[in-house]
Amino acid sequence: MIKERLFTPGPTDVPAEVLTEMARPMFHHRTPRFKAMFAEVNEGLKKLFRTSSNVLTLAGSGTAGMEAAIVTCMPRGKKVLVANGGKFGERWAKVARVYGMDVDEVKVQWGTAISPDLVAEKVKTGQYGAVIVVHSETSTATATDVQALGRITGPTDTLLMVDGITSVGALPLETDAWGLDIVASGSQKAMMLPPGLANVAVSEKAWKAAAAVKPQAFYLDLKAYRKSIADSDTPYTPAVSLIRGMKVALDMIHKIGIEKVWARTALLAKATRTAAEAIGLKVYSSQPSDSVTGIWYPQGIDDAFRKALEKTYGCSVAGGQDDIKGKVFRVSHMGYVDPLDTIGLIAATEYTLAKLGVKVKIGAGVAAATAVLRDWE
Amino acid sequence: MIKERLFTPGPTDVPAEVLTEMARPMFHHRTPRFKAMFAEVNEGLKKLFRTSSNVLTLAGSGTAGMEAAIVTCMPRGKKVLVANGGKFGERWAKVARVYGMDVDEVKVQWGTAISPDLVAEKVKTGQYGAVIVVHSETSTATATDVQALGRITGPTDTLLMVDGITSVGALPLETDAWGLDIVASGSQKAMMLPPGLANVAVSEKAWKAAAAVKPQAFYLDLKAYRKSIADSDTPYTPAVSLIRGMKVALDMIHKIGIEKVWARTALLAKATRTAAEAIGLKVYSSQPSDSVTGIWYPQGIDDAFRKALEKTYGCSVAGGQDDIKGKVFRVSHMGYVDPLDTIGLIAATEYTLAKLGVKVKIGAGVAAATAVLRDWE
Repeated sequence: MIKERLFTPGPTDVPAEVLTEMARPMFHHRTPRFKAMFAEVNEGLKKLFRTSSNVLTLAGSGTAGMEAAIVTCMPRGKKVLVANGGKFGERWAKVARVYGMDVDEVKVQWGTAISPDLVAEKVKTGQYGAVIVVHSETSTATATDVQALGRITGPTDTLLMVDGITSVGALPLETDAWGLDIVASGSQKAMMLPPGLANVAVSEKAWKAAAAVKPQAFYLDLKAYRKSIADSDTPYTPAVSLIRGMKVALDMIHKIGIEKVWARTALLAKATRTAAEAIGLKVYSSQPSDSVTGIWYPQGIDDAFRKALEKTYGCSVAGGQDDIKGKVFRVSHMGYVDPLDTIGLIAATEYTLAKLGVKVKIGAGVAAATAVLRDWE
Repeated sequence: MIKERLFTPGPTDVPAEVLTEMARPMFHHRTPRFKAMFAEVNEGLKKLFRTSSNVLTLAGSGTAGMEAAIVTCMPRGKKVLVANGGKFGERWAKVARVYGMDVDEVKVQWGTAISPDLVAEKVKTGQYGAVIVVHSETSTATATDVQALGRITGPTDTLLMVDGITSVGALPLETDAWGLDIVASGSQKAMMLPPGLANVAVSEKAWKAAAAVKPQAFYLDLKAYRKSIADSDTPYTPAVSLIRGMKVALDMIHKIGIEKVWARTALLAKATRTAAEAIGLKVYSSQPSDSVTGIWYPQGIDDAFRKALEKTYGCSVAGGQDDIKGKVFRVSHMGYVDPLDTIGLIAATEYTLAKLGVKVKIGAGVAAATAVLRDWE
């Protein structure tokens, strides 16, 4: 028996408390019972997203949530600025184009984030209806400073749409205080659930913009979800079992406290980066996200590392995509993963590299990580 | 303790075998393990839909599946005929309009289905890109003869798009043999799963039509799903736990054999209709679906019946919507429900009506149903 652990940046491990809740018998969703639960989930989501607005819940992947925000709220007849610094930024540009939007796709070097100065310059022209950015670009393990961008768009008519799929519940994020107009997330990341739910927070400014938009979608039109949630309901059949699991997961998160969860996540990331250096490995990103760490393979190593790591030690990590395929591995710090898991992964990394012929001082990474994590609480 | 039973036409009860499978630890979806499972699910779905084409799986509700089919495949520049004989027919007309389609919405009296002659007459004009019908209209417990409609559209360029959300796995349905170009289903009906998955079967004729369509959606563009499923994969993160449950549910269905499941469902419906008559109640529809039976409340009774039935006997049934709200109740025969459950529900119905002051000969309905179900296997 090998104990299996997911360090992939989604899906992440789901706590047994959540799994067993979802395994309870089905009940009908058009009932006071569902509404009471859904209202509690909404309150839990508001605390997670740090917003006083209702947070919408869709049956679908995170992509569905971001697309819904874009098609519902993006002011038409204006440009949309999309920061493309990885696979997900690239995707939002495609989505915007499908709906005939005038897309200004800014290609950002992988492993870096869009410069706030560039965004300020563009927004200043008054030509932009929205700026779309990825808070934590999973494919490059890189974070964007969305707080700085919120300061730019806040005083203007331009909306700031944030893909928070691998940031909500992991990185510090203040939807209201930072002036983020859209924040979308997916259930299989820091929210400790299986995939299948998307959540979207929408600011009043974004709803105002949406009011002027002629619907271009039905299932993904957020206006219907807004209307329903006022009565703690959903417009189409909700994914009841996943929402049920979400209730338990949110309760677990809020029992710890979201600020402490953010601090823990950051500490796991710091420990992982520190361990990588101690092992002699380089961190991939120049603006690393604390929800996922990208690490260059040492010379002579490729994705055989990931296979060996999983086979022998039960630890799944992600590889690189596109240009960095076979050159990088990525480790998640989101959700149901703690310092002891992380220290264990670092040990498994050392063992695996040594087996693959890399000269590794066994224990160096583990010791470095353990020192960083000493004051964990 | 009251044992709870769902007789609602979705969600339906989920077998413990399926619930516990979904409660097993998460694993990553970009793996050979997922692909192997997803390939098996696809094979099981093909047998269920009676098609040799791949059946696409989306994270979303049944509405997402139908919308995806409409936006992806509906030939543009032609009319779309939508048979609106209930809440779901009404919805597909709305969906088609959102995408700017020229909708010919034929209002059909509730409790009846569109006449094949009328469809033939319209299709003959050559003006129609597609006909959209609901196989089993849940809101009115009424079935449409989609086989007859397939004979009409089959030899033409017109697509036949079938909402099979409460029919797939319940009513006899032959996607290929009947020339159905689209069949969409939802997981929380005859497929014995929680809500959250939509499946769509697409004919070669529909793919040919789709090839000429400029995409108007991203997440709901079926072309991406078609491309991925060729490699037993999905374009966006799949709802892994639900798909895992689907594997178990499909295995359970195919172990019995789909034709036997259809026959069982039909027998449950017949027993329920026969019992209703024996109790002195009238069946609502003039073309009743075998997946759900609508029954008029006797004089003086309203939805207080449903509440009492649930409170005292743990049996959930659905009410009526719109014009028949408070006048009708609806009983599902789909999925994980058997003759003994159904006989029990009829007993509970008798008891509840009697308690509410209706003169009922206790046992008459039960005896009638039991006689119908005698040769059940």
